[in-house]
Amino acid sequence: MISQFYKEMTGKESVIRKFFDYSRQRAAELGPDSVFNFSIGNPSVPVPQKFTDAMTELLATEDPVKLHGYSPTLGQPTTKQCIADSLNRRFGMNYEARHIFPTSGAAGALSHALRCVAGQNDTVLTFAPYFPEYVPYVTGTGAQLRVVPADTSSFQINFEKFEEMMTPSVAAVLINSPNNPSGIVYTTETIKRLAEILRTKEKEFGHEIFLITDEPYRELVFSNVDSPFVSSYYDNSICCYSFSKSLSLPGERIGYMAVNPKAKDADYLVNMAGQISRFTGHNCPSSIMQLAIEKVIDDTCDLSIYERNAELLYNALTEIGYEIVKPNGTFYMFPKCPIPDANEFCWKGARELGLIIVPGDSFECPGYFRISYCVPTEMIEKAIPLFEKLYNFYK
Amino acid sequence: MISQFYKEMTGKESVIRKFFDYSRQRAAELGPDSVFNFSIGNPSVPVPQKFTDAMTELLATEDPVKLHGYSPTLGQPTTKQCIADSLNRRFGMNYEARHIFPTSGAAGALSHALRCVAGQNDTVLTFAPYFPEYVPYVTGTGAQLRVVPADTSSFQINFEKFEEMMTPSVAAVLINSPNNPSGIVYTTETIKRLAEILRTKEKEFGHEIFLITDEPYRELVFSNVDSPFVSSYYDNSICCYSFSKSLSLPGERIGYMAVNPKAKDADYLVNMAGQISRFTGHNCPSSIMQLAIEKVIDDTCDLSIYERNAELLYNALTEIGYEIVKPNGTFYMFPKCPIPDANEFCWKGARELGLIIVPGDSFECPGYFRISYCVPTEMIEKAIPLFEKLYNFYK
Repeated sequence: MISQFYKEMTGKESVIRKFFDYSRQRAAELGPDSVFNFSIGNPSVPVPQKFTDAMTELLATEDPVKLHGYSPTLGQPTTKQCIADSLNRRFGMNYEARHIFPTSGAAGALSHALRCVAGQNDTVLTFAPYFPEYVPYVTGTGAQLRVVPADTSSFQINFEKFEEMMTPSVAAVLINSPNNPSGIVYTTETIKRLAEILRTKEKEFGHEIFLITDEPYRELVFSNVDSPFVSSYYDNSICCYSFSKSLSLPGERIGYMAVNPKAKDADYLVNMAGQISRFTGHNCPSSIMQLAIEKVIDDTCDLSIYERNAELLYNALTEIGYEIVKPNGTFYMFPKCPIPDANEFCWKGARELGLIIVPGDSFECPGYFRISYCVPTEMIEKAIPLFEKLYNFYK
Repeated sequence: MISQFYKEMTGKESVIRKFFDYSRQRAAELGPDSVFNFSIGNPSVPVPQKFTDAMTELLATEDPVKLHGYSPTLGQPTTKQCIADSLNRRFGMNYEARHIFPTSGAAGALSHALRCVAGQNDTVLTFAPYFPEYVPYVTGTGAQLRVVPADTSSFQINFEKFEEMMTPSVAAVLINSPNNPSGIVYTTETIKRLAEILRTKEKEFGHEIFLITDEPYRELVFSNVDSPFVSSYYDNSICCYSFSKSLSLPGERIGYMAVNPKAKDADYLVNMAGQISRFTGHNCPSSIMQLAIEKVIDDTCDLSIYERNAELLYNALTEIGYEIVKPNGTFYMFPKCPIPDANEFCWKGARELGLIIVPGDSFECPGYFRISYCVPTEMIEKAIPLFEKLYNFYK
């Protein structure tokens, strides 16, 4: 018999995906120029030419049997070393190749990392607003996800609530900075305080509490922003990265899990991830992709458009009257709705005008909405009068 | 705390992998020309130039933002259609794009297919000799794998034992033809009889029993061999395929799950697979890889070397005295050991001589050993005297 659990889920589509599909439908009705899709985080700038050249050269010069052959279970050794070297160079860490596990994007990294440290009867804490896919990632391990309410004044951490929720069943804490959907980067002060609490609770509970850091937006930080490398502040940590956003390669599914060399059982965790792959049928990412990434390990696309878009949109929207914590990274911002019901605001008001934006309820932060501004600047310019009309309609 | 389950597994390496690692060590000791590694199924012929050209052209001509952008959750529509068309053309089926789910190789396909139809308290049956990774694939769903003993006279199905083991908890039956490790293709007669029993038991038990077919070796069938397309004989079936072996692309992790259009709930299964991916963190295979595959959908590498190697090795070994069911596909054969203890035979006798072969115990078929002959023909020629020495030592 087919699984009722997954069968029933097919009715419950991701809200973000629903908005995306709706935007295509609306474009068919109104014409594509009358629909402004701010619903999805698909990077809008091309991968560096260097990457394309690296791929082309690998195809032209490498022995195809080797190039496309099985990558070792724990990843291409040269790729692992290259990632470790880059992290050490940039963040003063001491990773070795054996601490790096190449994965299918951040989704793969998070699923492996969470299975390493959490299971049945465990709790994983995360902070609102948060990426809704954390629910299946955590549920898939057997553990339960609990969400610390947002500090909507700054979108840093609500420490009061966090400490209340730090019970002995907490096996791991999952953070995402720079954050989707708020666009906010956790400060060094935030990370230090978080680390301090975790260390205290580890002693109190008598077991490790792992800090899993979801970092696909690490390189998307605006000028002069304090952006600490989290793993330098807390030993029992696993960094989960994806090249999707920094190199505009989301479809190629390439990222990694980096185990803090100072973590308890650091020598086991990558080997454990190799075992976990066997149960999920996941295996390594594409072998040519691993090799090509080596050539652009310290590069990014031209990410400046995201900062320009953020500036333009933030200034225009706040002038209109929207309340927004100014984003300092990613390509998202998370304004407050002028009415409490973000669903009404997004699904009715905005939709009528051809604006596709996502209600904060999906990120467990009602009363807010997410704008993805990885779009041409011109589209933002055209959409601003619509955001004004929308505001005036509801205010 | 880290997961004890996965931590303990890190001690239990795959036997095949152990032999592979050992062969490298032995090559360092004896020199590479004195070690004959017949332990691993890494294809030895290059991918068709057409594939390399397709990749190069995609890189040169496509908009990189689109080319490397997110593939839809259920796979690239053109790739899905192309796979469906090819299967329909070749096997007279009626797949539509919506029945096809691109995956990370056969491992990804099997993990999704099994999660669709089996879970806690269910049993999945498979047939010895079988690919040992079926254990984690099935265990990962929550179900239990039970193994029908081999029919060592032909390596077709041991129907007597199979019928005995067909209890109401059986949710799925998993077959692999052409078979790793036996090299045997199930005949039309075998498949018809299997399908008949499954239909009878479905009626008797009052629930569907899904047939999951693991087909990475589908194209590796020797001349004039009866090789039925299993899904044409049984409606509740899911075909799991990988391009790893037919196109020599194992490292690129590209394959698919094809849901029989006549299966119960056929319209749900691919959508369910999309949901399953969220829990395993798997997502689609690489987007450029999906697109490139379209250009070589009906092609294979030059697979003739495998048949030549099989012929040469089979003739030589049977002449020496080995008992072998003659393989008619794949790049494996599975001779009987001249002594009952295949571990002694492989780990001691063969190893001493520099022959790296895998004991049948790993495939739940003791007393046999697997030879992977996806190697240069010259290596086989050189190894034959060693196989003779080995036989004479033990006989």
